[in-house]
Amino acid sequence: MQRRRLKTLSVLVENQPGVLARIAGLIARRGFNIESLAVGPTDDPIFSRMTLVVDESQVHVEQIVKQLYKLINVIKITEFEPDDSVERELMLVSVRATPEKRFQVIELAEIYGGRIADVGADSICLELSGPPGDLDDLLDLLEPHGVSEVARTGRVALERARKATVL
Amino acid sequence: MQRRRLKTLSVLVENQPGVLARIAGLIARRGFNIESLAVGPTDDPIFSRMTLVVDESQVHVEQIVKQLYKLINVIKITEFEPDDSVERELMLVSVRATPEKRFQVIELAEIYGGRIADVGADSICLELSGPPGDLDDLLDLLEPHGVSEVARTGRVALERARKATVL
Repeated sequence: MQRRRLKTLSVLVENQPGVLARIAGLIARRGFNIESLAVGPTDDPIFSRMTLVVDESQVHVEQIVKQLYKLINVIKITEFEPDDSVERELMLVSVRATPEKRFQVIELAEIYGGRIADVGADSICLELSGPPGDLDDLLDLLEPHGVSEVARTGRVALERARKATVL
Repeated sequence: MQRRRLKTLSVLVENQPGVLARIAGLIARRGFNIESLAVGPTDDPIFSRMTLVVDESQVHVEQIVKQLYKLINVIKITEFEPDDSVERELMLVSVRATPEKRFQVIELAEIYGGRIADVGADSICLELSGPPGDLDDLLDLLEPHGVSEVARTGRVALERARKATVL
């Protein structure tokens, strides 16, 4: 099996009805499989930003970019290289945690910088944002406790300030 | 203008090519406008979870749910009421921050529980996860400093443990 090489594309689009359908339709017709997708507002209500993650070992990223640019509501596409970008994802995870075991779950969450979003008699809901790999790692560690539900956002990315200088 | 009443729908779908296109197509054909969308993996690779946010003052949520259930790859739809659910969103925001002003930006981020994801000579990239309203508030406070880019995931939600007991 080929190793997955995930690539993140940030697509600035006009915030109009049907844009998502056109993009999703294009992706489906071309058979591009996407790993995750996040669509959210920007600081300008005219635009939304879609962050797509694709597996480079399976799709030609250049092809996708070229095809996407043909869509009328697509304004700008940025391809992110892991070294030049900040990539983050958010996860909510509901875990079985009886009072006796609760501190173990909380301890794991804290190691990863997670927070407690909700707590019940025998379960706990954790909120973790961070690099996507961290989310996978915490999920693996929580699995033995009994994970009942997971909701992940898919990743978002911004460019790093390239020439960071020490001040 | 009618006040927006946002409603969150969590849709568990089979992780198959074309599912997103079918859902986005349905939404576009019916003219449902969606506020945000997050598609991410679950703890089972067979399924993905889509979290849609719609404006109840503009669409009939029951209609959407009924239509979505007709799609073959849709397994389960959960409607979240704000009081019964934990709703979170993630934002990366790049802000102008000269060395003299940097502490002011960091201070604002810390008040909201945000983190510094990256820092450059005259800019800073913040990461904030929390209730969607908090993200809006921090963004407003950062605006005067000069926000250069924003990437938001759209919200995800999980049900609260309803009968939380004090232990």
